[in-house]
Amino acid sequence: MRMALCLEYDGSRYYGWQRQREVISVQQCVEHAVSKIADAPIEVTCAGRTDAGVHATGQVVHFDIPVPRAEPAWTLGVNSNLPAGIAVRWAQEVDSEFSARFSATSRRYRYIIANTRFRPGIHSFGVSHYHQPLDEKAMQAAAPAIIGEHDFTTFRASHCQSHTPFRKVTDLTVERRGDYIIIDIKANAFLHHMVRNIVGSLIVVGQHEQPPEWLAELLRQKDRTKAAATAKPGGLYLVEVTYPERYNIPQVPPGPLWLGD
Amino acid sequence: MRMALCLEYDGSRYYGWQRQREVISVQQCVEHAVSKIADAPIEVTCAGRTDAGVHATGQVVHFDIPVPRAEPAWTLGVNSNLPAGIAVRWAQEVDSEFSARFSATSRRYRYIIANTRFRPGIHSFGVSHYHQPLDEKAMQAAAPAIIGEHDFTTFRASHCQSHTPFRKVTDLTVERRGDYIIIDIKANAFLHHMVRNIVGSLIVVGQHEQPPEWLAELLRQKDRTKAAATAKPGGLYLVEVTYPERYNIPQVPPGPLWLGD
Repeated sequence: MRMALCLEYDGSRYYGWQRQREVISVQQCVEHAVSKIADAPIEVTCAGRTDAGVHATGQVVHFDIPVPRAEPAWTLGVNSNLPAGIAVRWAQEVDSEFSARFSATSRRYRYIIANTRFRPGIHSFGVSHYHQPLDEKAMQAAAPAIIGEHDFTTFRASHCQSHTPFRKVTDLTVERRGDYIIIDIKANAFLHHMVRNIVGSLIVVGQHEQPPEWLAELLRQKDRTKAAATAKPGGLYLVEVTYPERYNIPQVPPGPLWLGD
Repeated sequence: MRMALCLEYDGSRYYGWQRQREVISVQQCVEHAVSKIADAPIEVTCAGRTDAGVHATGQVVHFDIPVPRAEPAWTLGVNSNLPAGIAVRWAQEVDSEFSARFSATSRRYRYIIANTRFRPGIHSFGVSHYHQPLDEKAMQAAAPAIIGEHDFTTFRASHCQSHTPFRKVTDLTVERRGDYIIIDIKANAFLHHMVRNIVGSLIVVGQHEQPPEWLAELLRQKDRTKAAATAKPGGLYLVEVTYPERYNIPQVPPGPLWLGD
């Protein structure tokens, strides 16, 4: 029997999603909690393996269980075995061929910049602080160059293991809410560091150090060294994963917090 | 020479504002950082002594310094001597008769409830989680009873040291933003636990266990034991302190985070 769960977590408290030997990972905490409820050792597969410091409000995982249990076991029960920085948002039985990773048709991330003169004191590892004024309109003007199917070699980490540099970005918006800039990006999938690398170059445009057209030029060059530095992990949230309708996967507000849809 | 600073802090990391012998307080961290910059032992006075677990985005403090220093010393300099959970938002020289505490004409607090079936994983000590559905319209309907000058004995902690139970509440709104309920309350000053005690009883109204008129009845009874339990500290933020115009105190967005004005 296969279960799917949606997870929210504060990535600043863990060394990324993936289980590692010496340091604490989200996967390790989740597998520990789920195994307790299942009363059997359980391995979980996630939709997107977030890096150290990166958060999620809509991470989806699946796993197989030997014995069925009622829904509250997989929500309240798992939550009571998870640390305060990780929580289940929903749990649902799914078809046995459902894969949190391979069935996903799109992933959506949000990147939050606190664009204030001084660093934040509240949720300080949950936003990325840039003190220079950023022009969100210039950043938004760069977005159309990114949207569409492209070779994203320019925005790909050197150690990215994907067999292809092509990805299809369907949405990219840059919005200001007071002192905060929210970058919202959706694609069929992302290369390693792709969101943070795009954000890094958008920030350079927001600082008026490069014009909005620079993003299109960078893409054409297919050269990671031409683009800006990778943006810091603390502002990044995996907020939504989409699946074919037939799986009936629940929808929850992407957030984070009271950010809305 | 007298300085005023505005502070933002994550109260979950400290045992309240006030300096204590055995545990870490916000006051201790701020006095340590300010003393380093002043190169002299400095005592600071705050507008509102927040309890353990309670946050601030707009706490105001004042202190006297022996030697003037440029503004960046009191902002960037103090920030670099503060832990990640506390930050200066502005610093300004003020008249020698200005008091962060006694010159204040009003304080404003926000209380944030995550009204979700399951507990949060993000900023989990920065919101207060209530899993039962809350009717914010019923809560709002109770607000007019609280607004005005009243004897707030019903909502006063037993150990409150104020010489009078009278306070004047000028604003009280209850608003839903998706899964979040935001209670926003402003008064000339507050008794100890007054916001959390009012919120506790508003929550009972939001659960439809009492009608909106209950708040007026509670106030009339002047009996703390008749009201609901004190709401948890993690959802509470001191967001704004107001001073007479002649002091020219800067205004900053109350937040927290991207909550806006």
